[in-house]
Amino acid sequence: MNSTHSFLSGRGLSVRIGLALALTLALQAQPAFAGEPRMDEGPLVIAAQGAFSAGGTVVTAPGTFNPADPLNPAGQTLHGDHCDVIWQTPVNARPMPLVFLHGAGQSRRTWESTPDGREGFQNLFLRMGYGVYLLDQPRRGDAGRGTVAQTAPAATDDQFWFGRFRVGVWPDYFEGVQFPRDAESLNQYFRQMTPNTGPFDADLSASAVSAVFDRIGAGILVTHSQGGGPGWLAVIKNPQVKGVVAFEPGSNFVFPEGEAPAPIEGSDGPLAASTVPLDDFLRLTRVPIIIYYGDFIPETRSDNPNTDAWRTRLAMARLWAEAVNRHGGDAAVVHLPEQGIRGNTHFPFSDLNNHEIAAHMAAWLHEKKLD
Amino acid sequence: MNSTHSFLSGRGLSVRIGLALALTLALQAQPAFAGEPRMDEGPLVIAAQGAFSAGGTVVTAPGTFNPADPLNPAGQTLHGDHCDVIWQTPVNARPMPLVFLHGAGQSRRTWESTPDGREGFQNLFLRMGYGVYLLDQPRRGDAGRGTVAQTAPAATDDQFWFGRFRVGVWPDYFEGVQFPRDAESLNQYFRQMTPNTGPFDADLSASAVSAVFDRIGAGILVTHSQGGGPGWLAVIKNPQVKGVVAFEPGSNFVFPEGEAPAPIEGSDGPLAASTVPLDDFLRLTRVPIIIYYGDFIPETRSDNPNTDAWRTRLAMARLWAEAVNRHGGDAAVVHLPEQGIRGNTHFPFSDLNNHEIAAHMAAWLHEKKLD
Repeated sequence: MNSTHSFLSGRGLSVRIGLALALTLALQAQPAFAGEPRMDEGPLVIAAQGAFSAGGTVVTAPGTFNPADPLNPAGQTLHGDHCDVIWQTPVNARPMPLVFLHGAGQSRRTWESTPDGREGFQNLFLRMGYGVYLLDQPRRGDAGRGTVAQTAPAATDDQFWFGRFRVGVWPDYFEGVQFPRDAESLNQYFRQMTPNTGPFDADLSASAVSAVFDRIGAGILVTHSQGGGPGWLAVIKNPQVKGVVAFEPGSNFVFPEGEAPAPIEGSDGPLAASTVPLDDFLRLTRVPIIIYYGDFIPETRSDNPNTDAWRTRLAMARLWAEAVNRHGGDAAVVHLPEQGIRGNTHFPFSDLNNHEIAAHMAAWLHEKKLD
Repeated sequence: MNSTHSFLSGRGLSVRIGLALALTLALQAQPAFAGEPRMDEGPLVIAAQGAFSAGGTVVTAPGTFNPADPLNPAGQTLHGDHCDVIWQTPVNARPMPLVFLHGAGQSRRTWESTPDGREGFQNLFLRMGYGVYLLDQPRRGDAGRGTVAQTAPAATDDQFWFGRFRVGVWPDYFEGVQFPRDAESLNQYFRQMTPNTGPFDADLSASAVSAVFDRIGAGILVTHSQGGGPGWLAVIKNPQVKGVVAFEPGSNFVFPEGEAPAPIEGSDGPLAASTVPLDDFLRLTRVPIIIYYGDFIPETRSDNPNTDAWRTRLAMARLWAEAVNRHGGDAAVVHLPEQGIRGNTHFPFSDLNNHEIAAHMAAWLHEKKLD
């Protein structure tokens, strides 16, 4: 550490900053906080971080509020249907940040860490110099206050999600799956689930996502699964969305009116397309879009509804990308096994090979001049 | 920046680290990300950050799971009742981190930022070198998956909370209140609220908090409002809780059996004490405890149930601290106006003077050798 000491002694730089540097260097060779998983690399230097709500509505009950009877709802308001955002900007941030939207049954926890405690896309892309915005969508997680009541059901369904998210067919893991096999990782994975506190509403979520871009300006939207649908609608709503990375989007592909394909039959039921006016659809042709799907998706109809659902979605995604490109757009579908990247579940960004997935996505951002 | 350049050129330190330093210095004089509030100081250097779930239970439905019928709950499990934790450790972290537990109707958003977008206690204590752990308690926020169903009600009650949290008597702000008067700050404040997704259970929350300490080791617990009750129980459960800072704890003060005071009458109804076995209570005498209350708490009974509720709670807190100290403990109640710190609401840590509150708390941590 001699060189650090000589730095600390010299040339008018503040000792406070010097100490930060010295510690930065010292920590290169030390484990992180005792009891926590070690970080993949050295410290993160964060220029700013914080939290805010975006979008949402206000409802007012009829009547007049009486402060002496404060539990009477008359005349009171309810602020709900916003999204909740935590954000971090690294030093020397790239021009456009990444805005992350989770999928069904999930929260921003999706991106924060992996089931086995490694770094999630939050950290991996901070390290690459991107600002990160992590959303809880309206009526989910820390954005739980909605304007429509709903019951969180406390249903036993872990084994359904294990299958639906293509970890395996309970109790068996898929051979070669990029998912840790220890009990604690599975425990953490199941506990990522968190319920709706109001009905899922793709347009409402899209409005909240759009409000985030109103606040932060140009950025790139990264969606997962059910978040894909609100993502397409957010592009239509807001030209500040300059690109989309969609991981395994589900059932909300929007085609131009009159161009929707027939429903795709599968053992999970038919998968239908949605439509929007052509002018709206054309907005989706003005930004680069990449769509990723992982492994264990059957090529032909399977009796397993949980894997067959992804066969129909992958097929619909391909039809959708063709429609975007036919209208002059730039949409690509990457089925990871076709590129030699095998074993991915429905959560490629937190699978064991998430570094490889991040590198693929980063290369695409670079190719499209979004970095 | 000449000194930085000479540093970059010298003595075998990595250019990567040198660049981080150069940017650190450059950002000292620059605003943060465009559109976001400026940070109070320079960058945060984070040694590690991540997320995990702690505690919780597993329930299993009777029957046998059939992968061909995956939506049938029979034989499936539900992992619920955990807390969700995001954590950050700064470089050169102090030996013990701070573990933050929110209050009723809130999430960890309580600590992340202020209604007017300034830095919350998360950032302020990171800057002072503390590791920070921010919890969503069981059945709340990103820890929404519980084992008991509950309906999120979508009730109009903003004006109730405006009064209950002592911002004012709607639509008037208290004179001198340390709360911003602009519409957007109030909008953000109301949107911090998020509902229960299962019944509040102080013992369940305490078990989840205790599980956090099992994982991270020794630390200091910081609670708000309803979180105070689970906080006392967590001290009883886990000797790794080495000190407690409680902001405006509510109705869950635990006295030794046979020593509970009579309920305290108020216009919000009587406030009763709880009891625990003496051996449990004595664990609360083994760690330093400080309890803060803000301003606008009437000295004598008021007809306003929302302020009078805090008169009874402050009185109960004083009786409780006397009981702790009578048994050899170290508990202090700080009524901030008595120390000349005026205008605080129920959220001193995010009020306009939250720096002053943080400094007071930091001085206490130092005095008690918890830093």
